[in-house]
Amino acid sequence: MSRGRVSALESDDRWARVALSFLLEPKNDGVHRLLAAGEGAATLACLRERRAGASQEVYVRLPELDLDALAGAVRRLGVRVLVPGDPEWPATVDRLRCPPYCLFVRGAADLASLTDRSVAVVGARAATDYGMAVASDLGAGLAERGWTVVSGAAFGIDGAGHRGCLAGGGPTVAVLACGVDRAYPEAHRPLLRKIAEQGAVVSEVPPGAAPFRGRFLARNRIIAALGRATVVVEAGLRSGSLSTANEATTIVRPVGAVPGPVSSVLSAGCHELVRRGEAVLVTDTADVVELASAIGEGIQPDRRAPRRPTDDLDPVEFAVWSAAPVRRGVPAARLASLSGQAEARLPPVLANLEMLGLLQRSGDGWRKTPERRRPEG
Amino acid sequence: MSRGRVSALESDDRWARVALSFLLEPKNDGVHRLLAAGEGAATLACLRERRAGASQEVYVRLPELDLDALAGAVRRLGVRVLVPGDPEWPATVDRLRCPPYCLFVRGAADLASLTDRSVAVVGARAATDYGMAVASDLGAGLAERGWTVVSGAAFGIDGAGHRGCLAGGGPTVAVLACGVDRAYPEAHRPLLRKIAEQGAVVSEVPPGAAPFRGRFLARNRIIAALGRATVVVEAGLRSGSLSTANEATTIVRPVGAVPGPVSSVLSAGCHELVRRGEAVLVTDTADVVELASAIGEGIQPDRRAPRRPTDDLDPVEFAVWSAAPVRRGVPAARLASLSGQAEARLPPVLANLEMLGLLQRSGDGWRKTPERRRPEG
Repeated sequence: MSRGRVSALESDDRWARVALSFLLEPKNDGVHRLLAAGEGAATLACLRERRAGASQEVYVRLPELDLDALAGAVRRLGVRVLVPGDPEWPATVDRLRCPPYCLFVRGAADLASLTDRSVAVVGARAATDYGMAVASDLGAGLAERGWTVVSGAAFGIDGAGHRGCLAGGGPTVAVLACGVDRAYPEAHRPLLRKIAEQGAVVSEVPPGAAPFRGRFLARNRIIAALGRATVVVEAGLRSGSLSTANEATTIVRPVGAVPGPVSSVLSAGCHELVRRGEAVLVTDTADVVELASAIGEGIQPDRRAPRRPTDDLDPVEFAVWSAAPVRRGVPAARLASLSGQAEARLPPVLANLEMLGLLQRSGDGWRKTPERRRPEG
Repeated sequence: MSRGRVSALESDDRWARVALSFLLEPKNDGVHRLLAAGEGAATLACLRERRAGASQEVYVRLPELDLDALAGAVRRLGVRVLVPGDPEWPATVDRLRCPPYCLFVRGAADLASLTDRSVAVVGARAATDYGMAVASDLGAGLAERGWTVVSGAAFGIDGAGHRGCLAGGGPTVAVLACGVDRAYPEAHRPLLRKIAEQGAVVSEVPPGAAPFRGRFLARNRIIAALGRATVVVEAGLRSGSLSTANEATTIVRPVGAVPGPVSSVLSAGCHELVRRGEAVLVTDTADVVELASAIGEGIQPDRRAPRRPTDDLDPVEFAVWSAAPVRRGVPAARLASLSGQAEARLPPVLANLEMLGLLQRSGDGWRKTPERRRPEG
């Protein structure tokens, strides 16, 4: 079996990691053990010399490895290669059990800065109009508050989240399951170009690599790691978004889920996450910011309804007001009986309720001042 | 001040409690302290003799009290008066800080049996079509499983819950804020008649009493007490249904809330209950039955998506299947490289995948057997 061309670049940690990303699918446990113990170059040398017991997988693509050509392509495409230790390396990916061998980045923005205040917004590809609208609103709302949306550039929720974020004037980060030079889906080529212009397009597989299903699943862990929180907007019970949520939980990042109609199969995954206690229910940008913020920052107050004039009544006043009819007035004596209050106490109470605009005189009696809307019973 | 006619019935605990229900609004703390210490007759005697310091409230209606006439009306209307200790008295109301003085029941069914397996289904009056449909489905689903729906017979969610339950062939219980002889709302008179025929119409205020706002709020605690769990289907942030949920929590009964579109103000109260951890998210009858069931009964398994053929593949098979293209076939050697597997290992793998219907021959190569629907990435 050929060992492919051995390039001088292989002794460089960065390019050795690029070679690993070509040779191996993401999340190769054996190689991760080697990488944890040493550098990329040492790991690659181990593999080349068959000194270490990674799976046979590495030797299959070895004949096809041309690191000089790959490095040339990376440079030609203007793609940056990030490795652990780089200032731009987003430290959060090191929380993953299998961090990427390296990250390929297209776009001028600094990935570490972009993901400092960021939320992963994910969900179904076959989303509903409702889900698309929610994702787009969240994206815009997050951008307006200075947060970055991280997603996977897929059809549906991903695309809506990215577009909303761009519309809100913010940069956004797309993590692909294929090389950053490719557009997947093809219809999102213009969107990906825009994302690269204003934010970053990121992948752990090298330029030219195709999007396999296994790579989508692996990619989800990077989306989860690049967000301070992960929000699932719409997801069926089988959605890949649930794996993203699961990855976030694994690295102790909070997960939010957006509720929807119980009749929608595309909200069933979100509801199930909340039911199992694996996600917090979130309904708007403020909820999401609270979720993603460090403890003590961005805490959202409970939603309280606005105060009403009757909130300030004492019990006697409330009883009298409550007992007064809406349509026809009743005399004070009758109102005393209806409300269970002594008639002698009523004059100041009635005067106060009249002053507050809650009761009004009607003939020789009293009735409630009509409200625009009856309070709920 | 007149003390009204003193009836011989006042020495009877049951009728003394009826007198109290006429004289006092629900939840009179002073009178509840007296009742907790003795019987209804003794309490009433205390009040008549001004021996005990209840509020002045009791003396206001005393001149209007005609217990013989009230007892006659109760009998004429075929209304049962329940008091603590009766076999039909629903023991759960004794959990309330202020249990009703007595309960008036219209309808032949036994209230204790009706509420043995019961769920309070409550929500907004100005409900949406969505909320109405969910309440109706829940009502029918609960009835089909032998559960009773308890609600307040109001417009909106209450009515839909009752009607769904009746449509499901089950009895249902309406708790009114007015006398059980009255129809409130008037438009629900036929519904209330049907509820009384198949279940029960209940109130803590005597026949003839009008529905005041304070009585609606008080009534909500009885709805909560008569359900093993309380489910809020739709509620604005100010909805009275939230007070019902709160009463359920106070007596340590579980609360469920149905999610809905985040854009709906009538789901905002439900979402807030879930966010605050005051309610469990419920999406269907099975969830509600789980919530209402005693620990260990009716536990709903996690919703899992149906298994797919690829779930059973070993890692090598999955890698090969995953790497195979959908449209044009590729030769086995190429598939080995794409999947990162040694070519020598492929023949049995390919044979197995072909047998499972996951891969198919295409020209001199292999491709994925098309799926009706692509799995989500």
